[in-house]
Amino acid sequence: MGRKSKTTVRRLPKRGRYDSRTLHAILDEGVVCHVGFAVDGQPYVLPMSYARDGERLFLHGSVASRLMGHLAESVEACVTVTLVDGLVLARSQFHHSMNYRSVVAFGRARAVREPEEKRIALRALVEHLVPGRGDDSRPPSPEELAATEVVEFPLHEASAKVREGPPGDATGDLGLDHWAGVIPLDQVAGSPVAAPDLKDDIPLPAYVRDYRRPIEDARQ
Amino acid sequence: MGRKSKTTVRRLPKRGRYDSRTLHAILDEGVVCHVGFAVDGQPYVLPMSYARDGERLFLHGSVASRLMGHLAESVEACVTVTLVDGLVLARSQFHHSMNYRSVVAFGRARAVREPEEKRIALRALVEHLVPGRGDDSRPPSPEELAATEVVEFPLHEASAKVREGPPGDATGDLGLDHWAGVIPLDQVAGSPVAAPDLKDDIPLPAYVRDYRRPIEDARQ
Repeated sequence: MGRKSKTTVRRLPKRGRYDSRTLHAILDEGVVCHVGFAVDGQPYVLPMSYARDGERLFLHGSVASRLMGHLAESVEACVTVTLVDGLVLARSQFHHSMNYRSVVAFGRARAVREPEEKRIALRALVEHLVPGRGDDSRPPSPEELAATEVVEFPLHEASAKVREGPPGDATGDLGLDHWAGVIPLDQVAGSPVAAPDLKDDIPLPAYVRDYRRPIEDARQ
Repeated sequence: MGRKSKTTVRRLPKRGRYDSRTLHAILDEGVVCHVGFAVDGQPYVLPMSYARDGERLFLHGSVASRLMGHLAESVEACVTVTLVDGLVLARSQFHHSMNYRSVVAFGRARAVREPEEKRIALRALVEHLVPGRGDDSRPPSPEELAATEVVEFPLHEASAKVREGPPGDATGDLGLDHWAGVIPLDQVAGSPVAAPDLKDDIPLPAYVRDYRRPIEDARQ
């Protein structure tokens, strides 16, 4: 991934990360991305699910979606994934912060219209959320494929920012009588809720029962 | 909040919500927003902390931040807050979805430069994350205030989208042998981690010990 001017972290440069391993780990852990682009000068920021495939992301939506249509027309766009890891409580309000990991990618989407590539993308979108689910679900019919707009978004202009660790109070504030530290935040899966119309004889799959994010941990 | 063309949910209109109560609840539960705007035709989507104050959001950053500077110049912007509530596993890949609540607000930010209003905003930003913390932390010095850019963002053109409940498989798929249902996802606070340089005689405050989101639940 190129370290170009647009993707160079200027503010607090020590938080900038540019290696693929860090970027991929953040992208693979996230559930939603936020996609930004402008239509007639008006910026839109839309939450979307996504999947990473090497150095590209797949995004999808309905072919009837006006905004997906704009995205498929290869407008300049920005895709951001943010993971919040904790709240950082400093003695000073000024040094309050968050522990987080984020990726910002710039580029133009490209419509994916070839049916077999669309099938691969839609399976990847399911697998991104729940590994194992791609083989345990009905693949799209030709009509469903035709009703779905898929785009790929390149990761060649991407960078990450990471803030971790304790609060960074100024030395002069360390004697203040306020508690200081971090409240960790995690995205945690609750007990699965079966569909009300689920057939009686279908057991809960292990990949649902043991579900957790990040996925790497679940596989250990 | 006006129900104008730009904020009317067109795709799947049953998911659209326009009442202040729903919008405020989503904004008050969220930890980060994603702010989008364009600079020289290039869209940026940045994760930022925020606080709601009536019908406006406060955002802040360093006065040295190039992008905060653009935002303070009242460019057209879009602020989105997304809460992911669960993964929706349908029998068909096509009907896989997410349960989520999101708010999208359009408008132009306005720089907040009056010191007393900045103090109010910075306190609100701390209180948004950790209620009770505003009184238990050192307020900003004049130098810290001067180093912080604060903007307010209006909520007059905002709408929410909510997806909840079980998967919506087509009737013809209900007999398939795939498990179907929802994996709930929650943002959960872990055990607080005290700063390594915390003074020995400072107890863990109740508002940190009992911390949870959404904040309303914690106060019950």
